[in-house]
Amino acid sequence: MDVYQRIEELGISLPEPPAPVGTYVPLKVSGRLVFLSGILPFKDGDLMARGKVPAEVGVDTARQCARQCIINALALVEREVGLRSVGGIVRLNGYVASSEGFFNQPEVLNAASELLFQVFGERGRHTRVAIGVPLLPLNAPLEIDLICELI
Amino acid sequence: MDVYQRIEELGISLPEPPAPVGTYVPLKVSGRLVFLSGILPFKDGDLMARGKVPAEVGVDTARQCARQCIINALALVEREVGLRSVGGIVRLNGYVASSEGFFNQPEVLNAASELLFQVFGERGRHTRVAIGVPLLPLNAPLEIDLICELI
Amino acid sequence: MDVYQRIEELGISLPEPPAPVGTYVPLKVSGRLVFLSGILPFKDGDLMARGKVPAEVGVDTARQCARQCIINALALVEREVGLRSVGGIVRLNGYVASSEGFFNQPEVLNAASELLFQVFGERGRHTRVAIGVPLLPLNAPLEIDLICELI
Repeated sequence: MDVYQRIEELGISLPEPPAPVGTYVPLKVSGRLVFLSGILPFKDGDLMARGKVPAEVGVDTARQCARQCIINALALVEREVGLRSVGGIVRLNGYVASSEGFFNQPEVLNAASELLFQVFGERGRHTRVAIGVPLLPLNAPLEIDLICELI
Repeated sequence: MDVYQRIEELGISLPEPPAPVGTYVPLKVSGRLVFLSGILPFKDGDLMARGKVPAEVGVDTARQCARQCIINALALVEREVGLRSVGGIVRLNGYVASSEGFFNQPEVLNAASELLFQVFGERGRHTRVAIGVPLLPLNAPLEIDLICELI
Repeated sequence: MDVYQRIEELGISLPEPPAPVGTYVPLKVSGRLVFLSGILPFKDGDLMARGKVPAEVGVDTARQCARQCIINALALVEREVGLRSVGGIVRLNGYVASSEGFFNQPEVLNAASELLFQVFGERGRHTRVAIGVPLLPLNAPLEIDLICELI
């Protein structure tokens, strides 16, 4: 099945990609690698949630935020290089703004990883680094960056 | 000297690589680069230590954890692509769960860097990024990820 | 305009690159990618500032630190591969040691991104990941790492 069919079957409509929060570009191609800047869970022009997980943002909401980061990434890749040119996802770095005593960053980030797998199938299988941080730009609950490769 | 001889001389026997903590793959090859997911200091199926460095996990123990992460990485690379196909170590990112006032993440991570150099010689010389974080998945005291290159 | 002319017009004289803080190398080339180790804001042999932003290090000082990291990176790239061989900046990861309630890591890191753009022009446009952390090696207020590509 085609990547666009998968996205449609998942009920996802790709939004306008969020603008960078600063003087950088959202995506850059180097050779066959595609680097994406850190993506925040923007939806309809605002962050979906703000604060630390789970004290201020529950795990379920944080998982929705992780999924939204991937939707934003898909929209960005579609606009810049086209989703059909993606040969695979190589790396996902996930930073979760975590309140004291929270050690389940993987559960939050699984929502992002699973969506990548649903959209790209085997090619969506990626390496991952999950980190807890005290805070993120704009008080976002999480930030995700990706490295993909072109076909 | 061969990489396997070096490992044997160091008294290291490669374990079964730890399973991923989530829905991702532990290693992915893209072109000549080999990306490893974040590695935790698992040994015999459990974390060697839990908590922040140095308040809950002493620096010496944290150094042993850093060394164990590299042993786990070696086991993983051996299983997935074979250690003889490693042309060099390119990047080590090290995240140390740090208690307030601890600024010596480099001393902890040196234990990892030194083992890479012992095993691979000049080819093991790598760039490094050392970061203090408040907490990590499963309350691990540190997490290490690597980018290697194939011969 | 040439990269050396731009550096001169900006009034920058490249220093001796700071030595690594540990058993790693400051720069490694892999294929066309150039990986730089985490860079701290050393100037004349000492950190320009120490502590968290903004409680202990003001935003303006932190921005000067970010700029100094890039100056150190330029010095390093010049020594190791030559600035004229840089085809582009691919990735900037910026870690800001942040006090509670500070969410403006992008403003700090913009000082680094802007200098890269001034020096390299369009080729200096890069992707970026901005993260807040609790503390960094040597109590540095920020740390920056880069991935560049050769021409």
